[in-house]
Amino acid sequence: MTLDIKYRLHQTHCRWDNSLEPLATVEPGEIVELATKEASDGQIRPGCGTDALNTLDFSVIHPITGPVAVVGAQPGDTLEVEVLDIRAQEWGWTGIIPGFGLLADEFAEPYLKLWDLQDGYATFKPGIRIPLEPFCGVMGVAPAEPGSLDTIPPRLNGGNIDIKQLVKGSKLLLPVLYPGALFSLGDTHAAQGDGEVCGTAIEGPMTVTVRFGLHKGVSIPELQYTTPGSAVEKANKKGYYVTTGHSPDLFEAARKATLHMITHLTKHYDLTRHEAYALCSVAVDLRVSEVVDAPNWLISAFLPLDKFE
Amino acid sequence: MTLDIKYRLHQTHCRWDNSLEPLATVEPGEIVELATKEASDGQIRPGCGTDALNTLDFSVIHPITGPVAVVGAQPGDTLEVEVLDIRAQEWGWTGIIPGFGLLADEFAEPYLKLWDLQDGYATFKPGIRIPLEPFCGVMGVAPAEPGSLDTIPPRLNGGNIDIKQLVKGSKLLLPVLYPGALFSLGDTHAAQGDGEVCGTAIEGPMTVTVRFGLHKGVSIPELQYTTPGSAVEKANKKGYYVTTGHSPDLFEAARKATLHMITHLTKHYDLTRHEAYALCSVAVDLRVSEVVDAPNWLISAFLPLDKFE
Repeated sequence: MTLDIKYRLHQTHCRWDNSLEPLATVEPGEIVELATKEASDGQIRPGCGTDALNTLDFSVIHPITGPVAVVGAQPGDTLEVEVLDIRAQEWGWTGIIPGFGLLADEFAEPYLKLWDLQDGYATFKPGIRIPLEPFCGVMGVAPAEPGSLDTIPPRLNGGNIDIKQLVKGSKLLLPVLYPGALFSLGDTHAAQGDGEVCGTAIEGPMTVTVRFGLHKGVSIPELQYTTPGSAVEKANKKGYYVTTGHSPDLFEAARKATLHMITHLTKHYDLTRHEAYALCSVAVDLRVSEVVDAPNWLISAFLPLDKFE
Repeated sequence: MTLDIKYRLHQTHCRWDNSLEPLATVEPGEIVELATKEASDGQIRPGCGTDALNTLDFSVIHPITGPVAVVGAQPGDTLEVEVLDIRAQEWGWTGIIPGFGLLADEFAEPYLKLWDLQDGYATFKPGIRIPLEPFCGVMGVAPAEPGSLDTIPPRLNGGNIDIKQLVKGSKLLLPVLYPGALFSLGDTHAAQGDGEVCGTAIEGPMTVTVRFGLHKGVSIPELQYTTPGSAVEKANKKGYYVTTGHSPDLFEAARKATLHMITHLTKHYDLTRHEAYALCSVAVDLRVSEVVDAPNWLISAFLPLDKFE
């Protein structure tokens, strides 16, 4: 099936700002193809060294493609963005960046993995292979307020949501906060675990095709979505090894479960601590097992065993 | 295949206490069948009214079957408990108990749903059917310290872990804290979402068959497990509707995602708020989408659409 693509866009910006001129204005139902840059905007590239992470300029992160204005979109409406297709290029990177990530206090030294993406897989080390399931880490609309906001945290406008289930076939629903919505996307990830614990996934430039929709007069309190779920999870026939963390603080429980998984990985596989942490970020899923058995909540970190030969 | 069951046990206790006499002592590799009571120890029963939840005596919660001593188990070892089989009876209950649960402040009034469990399903209302995937909410060993502990929170000894993936075919690994391990289980659930948000799942008496194993000299920091994963999730061909909550506090993000799901359910299906909250507890999964994009973390609440006809 050939899609009727209305616009092909590639120009990026790196702040949420409702004063930005849209690259294109579309009617609901129209399809747009957006080329994305990887998250560092060229600071990390094939062949570069780990040192690049020590001098990373966060002010240009993330380059996001857009904005696209949607005719008729007004505050109080809901914007729909259907992901029709998303195609990775042949490389990607995962980094442990000093001062950033769930375990920043435990990992002072940087680490960089450059990946070849081929035939739907990325090989971490011999015998450890990550199936690709690409999605956009950043999808968002312009905020209501004037001024510019950095793209690191997610907010009411969406933004850096890092939801790995926003794969091809999913539909993102976002509250429209400013006339025209002014949608942008980027920070494309070839694979990620729920949590994105080290702060980066398999980062890489991609081409994303989306269809815009508009639900007039339908308001949602913050972003929602439909998703077919992870095809990779459904195909897993080897099951999971799972570590847990319990704590009165859910964040601390997530940290403990992740630390225990890193210990498990370094003990049972030929991996350094940095490699194990990066592998958690791209392949281990954090789920809330219980958040009611006061005073202790429990987080489980799921390692899919089909990643190992 | 007929299992070589060494003991069939049914006597319960309701405190973690290393001075309890074991009901049986087994060698590693031996199989035991344990009959469980439902979590309220008979306070909720078929035909009873919602009022029963107002006068619930928490001091007898949870009745757990055991303890079973394992020959040779010493602190520093790891106990393995393989779930060979788990069979529900024909009824169960789900309750919203005043003062208990993720949204206790929002739900002052009690709610009780009594379920018929038949042919692997529990019908919530016409057109809403929950596939059963039974597991033990409580699995644990005796604590190291003398004295008795209530069974509400999970602790280093395991306990009320409410991990829905501990289905047939899973293997729980627990640190041995006291000689003989003194393992007990109970609080059997016929179905539950990750998070168990209202504080109860589909609670019901069951028969559980486990094989004990012992890893001498292998220590783990807190409980870990292997699991085939959820067969129900893998069979889902309709995908998910997902609400999100973002917040600098992961617990608050979980609350927001759940509240938004309750709003979604009452708006789009013929459900009261109490029914929607209970449905979340038995069928909606909380996953940590990201816990690194400071200052806001994001929790997703997944509603599996195959529950609706």
